[in-house]
Amino acid sequence: MATKYVYFFGDGKAEGKGDMKNLLGGKGANLAEMTSIGLPVPAGFTITTEVCTEFYKNNRQYPAELKGQVEENLKKVETLMGKKFGDAKNPLLVSVRSGARASMPGMMDTVLNLGLNDRTVQGIIEQSGDARFAYDSYRRFIQMYSNVVLNLDGDILEHILEQMKERRGVQQDTQLTAEDLKEMVILFKKKVREEMGRDFPEDPEEQLWGAIGAVFGSWMNPRAITYRKLNGIPAEWGTAVNVQSMVYGNMGDDCATGVAFTRNPSTGENVFFGEFLVNAQGEDVVAGIRTPQPINKAGGDGTLPSMEEVMPVCYDQLMKVQQTLEKHYRDMQDIEFTIEKGKLYMLQTRNGKRTAKAAVKIAVDMVREGVLSEKEAVLRVQPEQLDQLLHPSLDPKAPKTIIAKGLPASPGAASGEVVFSADEAEEAAKIGLKVILVRVETSPEDIHGMHAAQGILTARGGMTSHAAVVARGMGKCCVAGCGDIKVDYKTQQFVARDGVVIKKGDVITLDGSTGEVMKGEVPTVQPELTGDFGALMEWVDSFRRLKVRTNADTPNDSKVARNFGAEGIGLCRTEHMFFEAERIMAVREMILSEDLSGRKSALAKILPMQKGDFLGIFREMKGLPVTIRLLDPPLHEFLPHTDKDIEELAAVMKVQPQVLRNKVDFLHEFNPMLGHRGCRLGITFPEIYDMQVQAIMEAACELVKNEGFDIVPEIMIPLVGHVKELAILRANAIRVADEVVARYGVKVEYLIGTMIELPRAALTADEIAKEAEFFSFGTNDLTQTTYGLSRDDAGKFLPFYVEREIYPNDPFVALDQSGVGQLVEMGCVKGRQARANIKLGICGEHGGEPSSVIFCHKIGLDYVSCSPFRVPIARLAAAHAALMDEK
Amino acid sequence: MATKYVYFFGDGKAEGKGDMKNLLGGKGANLAEMTSIGLPVPAGFTITTEVCTEFYKNNRQYPAELKGQVEENLKKVETLMGKKFGDAKNPLLVSVRSGARASMPGMMDTVLNLGLNDRTVQGIIEQSGDARFAYDSYRRFIQMYSNVVLNLDGDILEHILEQMKERRGVQQDTQLTAEDLKEMVILFKKKVREEMGRDFPEDPEEQLWGAIGAVFGSWMNPRAITYRKLNGIPAEWGTAVNVQSMVYGNMGDDCATGVAFTRNPSTGENVFFGEFLVNAQGEDVVAGIRTPQPINKAGGDGTLPSMEEVMPVCYDQLMKVQQTLEKHYRDMQDIEFTIEKGKLYMLQTRNGKRTAKAAVKIAVDMVREGVLSEKEAVLRVQPEQLDQLLHPSLDPKAPKTIIAKGLPASPGAASGEVVFSADEAEEAAKIGLKVILVRVETSPEDIHGMHAAQGILTARGGMTSHAAVVARGMGKCCVAGCGDIKVDYKTQQFVARDGVVIKKGDVITLDGSTGEVMKGEVPTVQPELTGDFGALMEWVDSFRRLKVRTNADTPNDSKVARNFGAEGIGLCRTEHMFFEAERIMAVREMILSEDLSGRKSALAKILPMQKGDFLGIFREMKGLPVTIRLLDPPLHEFLPHTDKDIEELAAVMKVQPQVLRNKVDFLHEFNPMLGHRGCRLGITFPEIYDMQVQAIMEAACELVKNEGFDIVPEIMIPLVGHVKELAILRANAIRVADEVVARYGVKVEYLIGTMIELPRAALTADEIAKEAEFFSFGTNDLTQTTYGLSRDDAGKFLPFYVEREIYPNDPFVALDQSGVGQLVEMGCVKGRQARANIKLGICGEHGGEPSSVIFCHKIGLDYVSCSPFRVPIARLAAAHAALMDEK
Repeated sequence: MATKYVYFFGDGKAEGKGDMKNLLGGKGANLAEMTSIGLPVPAGFTITTEVCTEFYKNNRQYPAELKGQVEENLKKVETLMGKKFGDAKNPLLVSVRSGARASMPGMMDTVLNLGLNDRTVQGIIEQSGDARFAYDSYRRFIQMYSNVVLNLDGDILEHILEQMKERRGVQQDTQLTAEDLKEMVILFKKKVREEMGRDFPEDPEEQLWGAIGAVFGSWMNPRAITYRKLNGIPAEWGTAVNVQSMVYGNMGDDCATGVAFTRNPSTGENVFFGEFLVNAQGEDVVAGIRTPQPINKAGGDGTLPSMEEVMPVCYDQLMKVQQTLEKHYRDMQDIEFTIEKGKLYMLQTRNGKRTAKAAVKIAVDMVREGVLSEKEAVLRVQPEQLDQLLHPSLDPKAPKTIIAKGLPASPGAASGEVVFSADEAEEAAKIGLKVILVRVETSPEDIHGMHAAQGILTARGGMTSHAAVVARGMGKCCVAGCGDIKVDYKTQQFVARDGVVIKKGDVITLDGSTGEVMKGEVPTVQPELTGDFGALMEWVDSFRRLKVRTNADTPNDSKVARNFGAEGIGLCRTEHMFFEAERIMAVREMILSEDLSGRKSALAKILPMQKGDFLGIFREMKGLPVTIRLLDPPLHEFLPHTDKDIEELAAVMKVQPQVLRNKVDFLHEFNPMLGHRGCRLGITFPEIYDMQVQAIMEAACELVKNEGFDIVPEIMIPLVGHVKELAILRANAIRVADEVVARYGVKVEYLIGTMIELPRAALTADEIAKEAEFFSFGTNDLTQTTYGLSRDDAGKFLPFYVEREIYPNDPFVALDQSGVGQLVEMGCVKGRQARANIKLGICGEHGGEPSSVIFCHKIGLDYVSCSPFRVPIARLAAAHAALMDEK
Repeated sequence: MATKYVYFFGDGKAEGKGDMKNLLGGKGANLAEMTSIGLPVPAGFTITTEVCTEFYKNNRQYPAELKGQVEENLKKVETLMGKKFGDAKNPLLVSVRSGARASMPGMMDTVLNLGLNDRTVQGIIEQSGDARFAYDSYRRFIQMYSNVVLNLDGDILEHILEQMKERRGVQQDTQLTAEDLKEMVILFKKKVREEMGRDFPEDPEEQLWGAIGAVFGSWMNPRAITYRKLNGIPAEWGTAVNVQSMVYGNMGDDCATGVAFTRNPSTGENVFFGEFLVNAQGEDVVAGIRTPQPINKAGGDGTLPSMEEVMPVCYDQLMKVQQTLEKHYRDMQDIEFTIEKGKLYMLQTRNGKRTAKAAVKIAVDMVREGVLSEKEAVLRVQPEQLDQLLHPSLDPKAPKTIIAKGLPASPGAASGEVVFSADEAEEAAKIGLKVILVRVETSPEDIHGMHAAQGILTARGGMTSHAAVVARGMGKCCVAGCGDIKVDYKTQQFVARDGVVIKKGDVITLDGSTGEVMKGEVPTVQPELTGDFGALMEWVDSFRRLKVRTNADTPNDSKVARNFGAEGIGLCRTEHMFFEAERIMAVREMILSEDLSGRKSALAKILPMQKGDFLGIFREMKGLPVTIRLLDPPLHEFLPHTDKDIEELAAVMKVQPQVLRNKVDFLHEFNPMLGHRGCRLGITFPEIYDMQVQAIMEAACELVKNEGFDIVPEIMIPLVGHVKELAILRANAIRVADEVVARYGVKVEYLIGTMIELPRAALTADEIAKEAEFFSFGTNDLTQTTYGLSRDDAGKFLPFYVEREIYPNDPFVALDQSGVGQLVEMGCVKGRQARANIKLGICGEHGGEPSSVIFCHKIGLDYVSCSPFRVPIARLAAAHAALMDEK
C-alpha cells in the first residue's frame, strides 16, 4: 500500500486527529481536530512531516506518490468549497503554511492568496463584487510569493508600493484604489521579470508546488535553525505543510481577523484575551505592524473599541468557540480566527505559550476548576520556565523615574545599557555587559539579540507581536508597543515622555509585569514563593522520588537554598573558604612551607576558621545531610602571582621573595585541570585533609554535644581515579574522625564517599564503591575529561560547535546523555552492584537543568544538587520525571 | 579438615611438586621436585605462601594450625636425619630461607646454622670432631641471626671480629683458632645483650620461630618492595619459608659450595658453567666477597684450579645431576650445591636467569636439540628482554683505550659519567645524566642506583655475584669482579691499569660482553638481527595474529622500522614536519594570519614540503599501509614565545611585533591538552586539513602514476569526540582527495578513519564507526583523559603513586587494562557492531609494551603500532599472546 502523505479536513470531517502532531505538525493536527469537533474551519489538507524528512533525505526530491495525493485532495477541497483551483469564474484560492511538531512562531514561511493570476483575479472580482479587494489580494500574493518562493528581496516590490503611494499622494495602503492596485500588479510582475529573468508564474499548479517547496525549504533557513537550537528541537522532526482554502478578513468592514488566548497568557487570569483588526489579513496582527484592538472590554484600556462592542454576534460565537476549545483541549488555547463578511472561521488553535506566572496560575486554577488533576497540573508547567519566577522583581518601595509605559508583554524585571541592534546586543553580552535591546519592532532576524539581552523594549506591536511571543517563550522581560518612545536608529537614541533622551549605553530598567520603563537601575526584591507557586510545589514534592539538594559554600547560600526547598547540601566546596581574605595568608604559608611542620603550623591557623564555617552551615541546614568536599584545586591557584603580592607574602613569611617565586614557578602546571589536585593533594599532603576532617568532625561533635543537633556529615574525597587513593584517604579520615569523636565523647556518625568525576572512576565504580558510602557525580569535570574539553579554553570553538549543531547542546549546560551520561549510568550500576545501599547523587551544574534531572531520575540517582536558585526547577523536573514514569 | 600449611620433603619423597610454585614458592617447589626425582637434597619442609598472606592479613599473626604442623614436620626431619633439634649430643641444625613465586635474588632474609647454642655446639664438636668449625658456625649463626632477626646493625659484631683479628695479628677469618672463635661467641652474646637489652635466644625453638618471622617480615622490607615494583610482582603473592637440614661446605678442604648454570647464562652456549669455593658456605659465593674458582676447565681462564680438577668425583656426579635437571625441567637451570665431606647435596634448582642473547640462543638451540617445539622456544624468550638485543653495541672498529678488564657479567655497551653511590646515580639520572655506577661490590641496597645507571662496574664478585645477577635481570650492561681497579670512595675516584685515575664525573665505557672497561665514550654499531635472533623471529611471525606497525614521522625512521620488521606505519605525525626549521616560519605565518586568504597563502608554501615528506615515507614503506594523522597540537605550540623570536617573525611577516604578541596571548590556553587542537582545528580552519589531504593524495597519486606503486593512504583525523566532527571532516577530506585523484587521472583508494583518544569517542564508538573506516586507539591521550592525568604535570605525584603502589603500574608505560583498557575494548566491540570490517589498531606508546600488546591481542585489535626499536618486542609479545590463546 502506498504511504499516505496527505490528510484531508473539512465540513466537520477530518482524516487526521489532534494526537497526530508528529505526522501532521501542530497546526495540521489541530485543524483536523477542530474540524472534527464541529468548529468552522476552512477546508484543506495537510502534507505530512514525513514528506519533509524524505525531501531532505533524498536530495530535495519529493516522494513519487505525493503529486497524485495532492491533486486528489485539492479536488476534494474544490468539491466542498464549490470552487475550482485556477478557474476563471469561480476560483479557489488557498493558503500554504508550515506547521511543525513544536510551534516555531514566525520562523518559517507562509504564502496566502495562492491561485491568483490574471484570469482568476477576474473570478474573484465577480465573486466578491470588489475589484479593489481582488487586486489588493493579488498584489499581496505577488509580493509574498516573490519574497518567499522566488527569494526576491522584499524591499524591491515594497519600494514600488511606496512610490505608488507617493505618486498618488496618500499615506496608507488602504487609500490606494483598485486601479492603482491593478497597475501595481503589472509593475510588480514587470519587476519580477527584470529581477528574476523569468515571468511570475501564472499557472496555479506551478504556484502551489513552488509554495510547498518554499515551506519545506524554510525548515532549513538560518533563523529556523537558530530557533530550533535555542529550543532544543531536532532538525529531524521536519515540518508539515497545510494547504487550506482562503477566507478573507479584508473584504471590508464586516471582515476582521484576530488572535486570542482563552486565558491571559501573561498573568494566567481566567479571562478571554485577544486582539483583532478590522478589514485585515491575519499576518497583519502577528507581525505587529498595526496596533490592534482588544477583543473585549476586559482586555482593553478604553482607547480602542473592542470586538465585543463592534461585532457582538461574532464575539458571542467566538466566545462559545473558545470555551469549546479549552474544554476540548483541557489547556489554555492560542487561537487565530478570521471573519469573512460576518462569518467566523477558525484558522488555528494550539496550546498557548505563557509566562511562568501564567503557567503556574492556569495549572493551579484548572485543578481548582476540576479540569486537571494535580499530576496533570504539575506536568503543565515547564521546569526551565520557573526560572522567571525565582529571580528578583522590582522593589515596590524603590524610587522609580518612569519615562514611558508600554504593554506588559513578558513579566520580570531587567536593567541594562541600551543598545539598538541585535548584533550589538550579542557583542555586548559576549563581554559580559547587561543590555536592553530597544527596537521599533522585532522580527525573527533579531532572535540572537533577544537571547543575549536582559530585556526587550519595542515601540510598536501588541501583546501577540513577535517581540512579546518570543520574549515570553524565552522567559525574558519585555515591554512591547511602547508608543511613548520614539526610536532613532541613526542617532542611536530614543526620546521618551517629556523629551527625556536615552542614548546608547544609558541604563534603563524594564518592568515586564507593568509595562513601565524607568531611567537608571531600580533595585529589586526577592520572588514570592507562596500562593499558587507554593501550592504547585507542594504537589510537585508529593510526586517526585528524586531528592534535591543544593551546592552551597556559605551559611547564607544554605539559607537561600532551604527557602527554595533544598533538602540538604550536595556539594560544599571548602576551597572557597580558603580564598577568604583573612585566610589566604595562612593558606599560602601552608603551601609554601618547605616541610611538614611548617605546613602543620599554618594548617593549625586555618583549623578554627574552617570549623567556624562548618558550624554555620550545619546550623542552617538543621540536620539535613551536608556533603563536604575536601580541598580540590591545585595549590598554585591560591598563590600570589604578581611581584608585589609575592613580596608582601615573603615579608609575612620572613623568607626571600626569590624563594617564594621559585616555589610558585615550581608549582606551575601545563594542564592544571589534569594536575596535582583533588585527592592527589590528600595523598601527598595528608595533613591538609586531616585538618579538614578534624574541622568537620569537631563542628559536628560540638553541635551534637551542645546544641542537641542530629547530624551525619558526609565527607567527600574529590578526583579519585583509582580505588587505592580512596582506600588510603578513607583510612586517614576514619582515623582522624574517630579520634575527634572519642575526644568529645559523643556519638556522631559520618559517611565517607567520593566524587565520580573522572572517566576511570566511573569505569571502575565497582572497585571504588567498596571504599565509598556515597558517590556524587561531578559532571562538570566529568564532561571536561570525557570530551577532552577544557571549559576555560573552549570559548574559541565551542560556540561555533553549538551554533553549527556539531554538538547537539552545550555539554556544560545539558548533560551529554549519550557520552558522559553513559559513564554516569555505568557508575550507578557498578556502584550498586558492589554496595547495594550506596547513596548516589550528582553535583555538577547539570543538577539544575531539567533534561539532565530527568536523566538522573531515569538512571536511579538518589538526589541531584544544584545552585540555590535552580532548586525549584530541579524539584519540578524531578516530579515530571516521576510522572512520566507512570505513563 | 585443617588447612595444610607445611609440606615435607626428604629421602626421595616429597609432599609438594614442581608445579606448586604459587603455594610453595619457587625454591620450595623445586626442592620438592628435586627430591622426588631422586636427587640428593637435605631433608626439610616448606611453610606455604598462604601463611605469608594470612600473616599480613591478620595483623602479623600466624594461622593457629601452623605451630603444630611445624613441630610435626620437624620431627619427621629429625627421624630422617637421625638427629634431634636442640639435642646436646646429636643436634639437628637447619637453614631458614625465603622462597617466593618469582625469584627475587638477595632481596629477602636467610638464617643458617639455626639450632646452635652453648649446649648443641658441643654436640657439633663431637659429631664433626672439629671445634673450630663448630665455633665458626656458631659465631656465624649469631652474626646472621642478630642482624636478620634481631635487627642489630651488622657492623657492630663485624667490628668485634675485626678487633679480634687485629689482636691476634691475622688477616683472614680462617686464621682465627677455635679458642678465638669460642671467645668471640661470648663477646658477641655480651654485645647483643648490651645492645638489645636481652639475651641472645638459647632456645632452638625460639630461634626457629624468630627466623620464620624474620623471613616473612622481609617480604615487606624496602628493597624487596622496590624489586617487586621493578619486576611487576604483586605484594599479594607472599613468600614461602623453607626450613631445611644444614649441610656444610665449610667443614674442611673436602667440603665446598657452589652455584652453576646448566648453560652459559651470558652467551647461551651449551656448556656447563659455574663457580665454587672450597671450605665455604653458600652465601660466600653469592655475596661475591671471595672470588670463586671455576667449576670446570672450560669455564676458567687457568689462573684458578677448577672443581673438575680438584674434586673430579664430585664433579662427575654434579655433571650427571645437571644433565638430569635440565632434561627434567626442559630449561636451563641455575643450581646451588654443597659438598660436605665429599658428599654432594643439591640445595636449589630453578630456571636460570639469562641475558637476552642467551635466552634467544638457548631457545633456538633447544629446538635444534629436539628438546623444545618452536612454539615453546618462542615462549621461552621474554619480549621485554629483547630490548637488550635491539640497541647498539660497541663499534668493533672504533679505537678503544682499555683501562681495565673484568668479568663479562651482563652484555651490552654503555657509556656514562662515573658515580660511586646508588643515590648519586639516581640523582644524576633524574636530571637526565647518563652514569656508570662503580662499586667495590653491590648489595640489594643498591638496586635503585643500578636501575638508574647505564651500566655497572664492580671491583669484586663473580659471574653470579649480586651485581651480575641483578644487572642481567635488568638487561643492563655490567662488568663485575674487575680486580684491575681500585675504588676509593673517600676521594671519589678509582685507579685502573697503569695508574690511570678516573674521577667522579669522568666518562667511561663498559662492554658487558667482553668485560672491557674503556676511557671516554666509544662509538656503537647497530645490533645483529640475523642468526639465532632471525630464526626465532621467523617462528614468532608464523605464530602471531596481531600485525605490528611502527610510529614513524620520517623516511629514516620508516627504514629503521622496516628492518625491525614493521608491517606498516600506524602513526605518522604530521606536526613534527611542521616544526622543521625551514618550515616553521610558514607555519607561524599561517597561524598568525588574520584571515582565510592569509592562511591559504602560507599553507600554499607548506604544501610542497608536506608532499615531499609523504613521498619519502611512502617510498620507504613500499606499499605497506601508512596511517597519516592530520595536524593535532594546539596552534600555540608552533608560536614564538620570546620577545626576540616574536620580533624576528614580525619583521618577516611585516607586522608590528605587538600584533603578534597579542595573537600569541590570545592563543594561550589554560589546559592545552583539552583545548583547541586535533579535529577542532580542522573544524574551525578547514583549509589546514584540506592542504594536508591534498599533499597526501598528490604524493600517492604521483607514486602510483610515475613509479608503479601500490598504495592505500590511511588518513587519520585526531581527537574526535562526537561523530559529527568526523562526518564533517570526512566529507571535506573526500572532496579534496577525489579532486586530486581526478586531476591525476589514476585510481588511488584511500581510507579515512580516526584516533580514539577521548573517553567519549570510545563510549560512542558505534556512532563514530559509521563515519570511520578505521580506528586507531591513541592510548597516550586516552590515558590522560581517562585518569584526568596530565603527563606533563604528573611528575609531582606519579612517581610517589607508583612507588607506593597506589597505581599498580605507571599507566603511561603499561596500559591500564581495568580502566583505559575497558574503554579500548568498548571501542572495539562498538566499532565492530557498527562496521564489521573496521580496521582496529593502537598507536599509543603502549603498542610496544608486552603486557599491553597481549591485551590488544585479547580484545581483537588488528595491529599495534610502536616506536621502531620496540617493533621486535611487540612481534614477540604478539606471538606469546597467540600461543597463550592456544593453551
